[in-house]
Amino acid sequence: MLVVSSIGAQQRQTQDLILQWGSTDVRYPRNEVPVWQGNKQWETNAWKGERVNAQAVLWTKQSLKNVRITVSDLKCGKNVIPASATTASFVGYVWTDELNKDRKSGCSDRPNKADWDSSLVADVLEVRKSLDIEAQCTQPLWVNIWVPQDIPSGVYKGALTVSGENFADMCLPMRINVQKRILPDPAQWVFHLDLWQNPYAVARYYNVPLWSRQHFDIMKPLMQQLANAGQKVITASVMHHPWAGQTEDPFDSMVFRMKKIDGSWVYDYTVFDRWVEFMMSLGIDRQINCYTLVPWALKFDYYDQATNRIRFVEAKPGEAAYEDYWFSFLKDFAGHLRQKGWFEKTTIAMDEREKSMMQKAFDLIFRADAGYKVSGAGDYYPEIEPKMYDLCLAYGHTLPDSVREERRRSGKLSTVYTCCIEAYPNTFTFSEPAEASWLMWHAVAGGYDGYLRWAYNSWTKDPLHDSRFRSWAAGDCYLVYPGSSSIRMERLVEGIQDAEKIRILRKEFAESGEAAKLKKLNQTVAGFMPEKLNGQNASQMVRNGRNLLNTF
Amino acid sequence: MLVVSSIGAQQRQTQDLILQWGSTDVRYPRNEVPVWQGNKQWETNAWKGERVNAQAVLWTKQSLKNVRITVSDLKCGKNVIPASATTASFVGYVWTDELNKDRKSGCSDRPNKADWDSSLVADVLEVRKSLDIEAQCTQPLWVNIWVPQDIPSGVYKGALTVSGENFADMCLPMRINVQKRILPDPAQWVFHLDLWQNPYAVARYYNVPLWSRQHFDIMKPLMQQLANAGQKVITASVMHHPWAGQTEDPFDSMVFRMKKIDGSWVYDYTVFDRWVEFMMSLGIDRQINCYTLVPWALKFDYYDQATNRIRFVEAKPGEAAYEDYWFSFLKDFAGHLRQKGWFEKTTIAMDEREKSMMQKAFDLIFRADAGYKVSGAGDYYPEIEPKMYDLCLAYGHTLPDSVREERRRSGKLSTVYTCCIEAYPNTFTFSEPAEASWLMWHAVAGGYDGYLRWAYNSWTKDPLHDSRFRSWAAGDCYLVYPGSSSIRMERLVEGIQDAEKIRILRKEFAESGEAAKLKKLNQTVAGFMPEKLNGQNASQMVRNGRNLLNTF
Repeated sequence: MLVVSSIGAQQRQTQDLILQWGSTDVRYPRNEVPVWQGNKQWETNAWKGERVNAQAVLWTKQSLKNVRITVSDLKCGKNVIPASATTASFVGYVWTDELNKDRKSGCSDRPNKADWDSSLVADVLEVRKSLDIEAQCTQPLWVNIWVPQDIPSGVYKGALTVSGENFADMCLPMRINVQKRILPDPAQWVFHLDLWQNPYAVARYYNVPLWSRQHFDIMKPLMQQLANAGQKVITASVMHHPWAGQTEDPFDSMVFRMKKIDGSWVYDYTVFDRWVEFMMSLGIDRQINCYTLVPWALKFDYYDQATNRIRFVEAKPGEAAYEDYWFSFLKDFAGHLRQKGWFEKTTIAMDEREKSMMQKAFDLIFRADAGYKVSGAGDYYPEIEPKMYDLCLAYGHTLPDSVREERRRSGKLSTVYTCCIEAYPNTFTFSEPAEASWLMWHAVAGGYDGYLRWAYNSWTKDPLHDSRFRSWAAGDCYLVYPGSSSIRMERLVEGIQDAEKIRILRKEFAESGEAAKLKKLNQTVAGFMPEKLNGQNASQMVRNGRNLLNTF
Repeated sequence: MLVVSSIGAQQRQTQDLILQWGSTDVRYPRNEVPVWQGNKQWETNAWKGERVNAQAVLWTKQSLKNVRITVSDLKCGKNVIPASATTASFVGYVWTDELNKDRKSGCSDRPNKADWDSSLVADVLEVRKSLDIEAQCTQPLWVNIWVPQDIPSGVYKGALTVSGENFADMCLPMRINVQKRILPDPAQWVFHLDLWQNPYAVARYYNVPLWSRQHFDIMKPLMQQLANAGQKVITASVMHHPWAGQTEDPFDSMVFRMKKIDGSWVYDYTVFDRWVEFMMSLGIDRQINCYTLVPWALKFDYYDQATNRIRFVEAKPGEAAYEDYWFSFLKDFAGHLRQKGWFEKTTIAMDEREKSMMQKAFDLIFRADAGYKVSGAGDYYPEIEPKMYDLCLAYGHTLPDSVREERRRSGKLSTVYTCCIEAYPNTFTFSEPAEASWLMWHAVAGGYDGYLRWAYNSWTKDPLHDSRFRSWAAGDCYLVYPGSSSIRMERLVEGIQDAEKIRILRKEFAESGEAAKLKKLNQTVAGFMPEKLNGQNASQMVRNGRNLLNTF
């Protein structure tokens, strides 16, 4: 059963003001008349506890003043999905660019915006009371409904209403067929989601003092949204510029280091502790990944007590100066983590570094404390793999089955990541929305435990208006906007929900011995491997996959 | 009785190699044949415990190899001033410049050395095993004898011997008439000497890590020499660049300040404590002057925990940001000083600042802790004077008698300072050596408790060879050289000894009712007031004064 409406055949635009249901697979262009399919009704299936999305499209010949969107309670007899469980957003437009000129990746530097085809794309999901809409414009509207876990199954009916000062209310009916199965709370999801947070970007964008109360207050809804996506990992930086300051707002050390005049080191973990405690208070409490012992630029800063200045050590793993800088820290840090009860949750994290450097760093880490866990993202190196508690492989790299199984048995994590390299699937602002969901299906298909992306919110200078950056294809740096979700993020959450559903159904079918269903499910999942995506079929594949899940 | 020999009338140079006694009032030019006076014998008076200086002059037609100077034991019957109580130095030459073009001061900036008449002057007192001396050169030799306190009076005789590889030993007899009176140890001197130390210059010059063990080891003889001059004050800097970095090696904060993310301040006194303890271990333990709350540039640094960077606050006394920076520090510092037992010895020090700023700073200091002492150098302001524990007036400024007496009664200090402003008297490398002594006589004459100079060792880039600096007349920045004393420093110590002698004699004459002697002494002292010096008569005045002291 296909429940998500889509707009199909072209038709002549005769009316002054049109509102219809569209598709969440489409980024509706701002200044084009939408291709209307006549969908007045929106209907979907949902598990209890699931979030579902719908997109409506408004087109107007005249300008509209003070437009508001409201979603009613959705009712099934006396049972209700309250309006408070829904979020209605105006879809906003942001500047994007394109893939590299060879269309094979999005990794090139882009110092001059003029060198790249740029356009405005629909991606921002702005929650606001009202909006004035210009004449001759398309205005998509996004609705998210978080179905309560504790309501009975049944068909829940309600409506989306669009009202404004200079036009009559318009109404679109909604139906959600709430099924019997229950999707657990995101905190209980098993899918290992690791989107790296950038608190420095938040402080800069909102112009609040770093780590001040205002900073934490502002980060709360942003990081709560991440927790609601099932995020498992706190991104912590324990040194200056782990990635050589590649983002608009470089990561800095959450640990203070002072070299005393007698050559000894003193550390202060106030910032680290406050950040970790904050994230844990939001439910992101499974893992703390600390970047890094092998940064992209091997330069390490500290406060020099003698001269009252910041100094930098340049040293490679294996060198004496490197050992002096890190060994005492690793010992002290282990003690601090144990005192906080966090040692078991913490990993020393490395990212896309060469093998021999990582090996030397491992040696140091385990000498400092044999109990340390290590995480890392990059290619698959058989020599290094056994030392990695949390191993994240670049898209296209797979573990031998025996290794994956052995890792799972011993409680280690194996995940997959994408970055600017992949032309498809990706989550650039110009990527097909369904690719965000597709990636999660792919993680399941590849036998990975989860998915990692390097940038949840490494915002550009003006992220709400321009997703282009000096490096990489637009949107690479962030999945959500200041104060606003995105089509990409909502579709990514859908994919994680699908992954959880697959996990639950597999278990159910295995336990109940429903081999035919299990086989069918696994066959469909197996389709989500790299060679199967060409940039055209993500929407259809995800739709098919999701439809299958709804048949069980 | 005139005991210091001098070289007078011109005479024809006939010998190849001449050694005679010269005068400590003269800087003998390197490449001129000295004016010989035929002084084969040197004789002086000394109190027990006094240091006396003599200068011999060597002239050679041929180059001399491996020249060594030795001083014998000085004997009086079976009593001995051991050779170990003497220091024999080769006088070294250093580049100097001149007064401002108007000859009225030495304060102008001197960015281009070529704009100033430069010459090599004799000033450095190099203690070394041996020296090769070039042909057609004058080589002065300096001898300092620290007469023991515990020997009987009498005439002690010995000799200075000059030997070398390519000439026969030469010998000059020495006689010291040790008088009955005893000069106390420098630690017991009452004269309040305050020459500002610059530990930063030492670390830079010797290229040792600041505040390392090597740094302290190297500073030990330098600061011991200062203690031996009767220094009373430890120069401590409690903020970044108290004098806007005017010296070759700017002073930095000996206190670490961190602004925590909750807005509170944390301090670390490791460097301050180590420096103070070091200086106290050498006997400089009366006072700690902490610079400053009102620096020349009102910029204050701190380590910002949030951003891991040094930040600067720009704020004036009376402003909220100034209060935030200083108030908590002053409270914390008072607690720390009390814990160390140093609070009574410590002053918050200010230097040449305007009245209204100082008043606002006072208000803050006394609000933080009413027990704080304050010191300051500058002009005389009646409104501010009562708040100053240690008030140092610029040369030419005097206190009303009643104020001076009231200050003395209440245990407050009143001293005098010179800097670049004075053409005469001064201690530039081109100043007459006797001016250094004269200044101490002046301090006594003006009823001051002591003397302050802003630079004991703020060395230039190459202090042993070039005393010129980008600001001020040459030599302004330092009185002693790396590893070497100077003619200026030795003559300054002589002046302090004179001041101590005057104090002792005044007390003695007052107690014994010797009014005539007291009157004569006071009359001579009274002559050392500013209007009496014209740059020509310092040597004669000091010689006369010292001769008078020896008659008693």
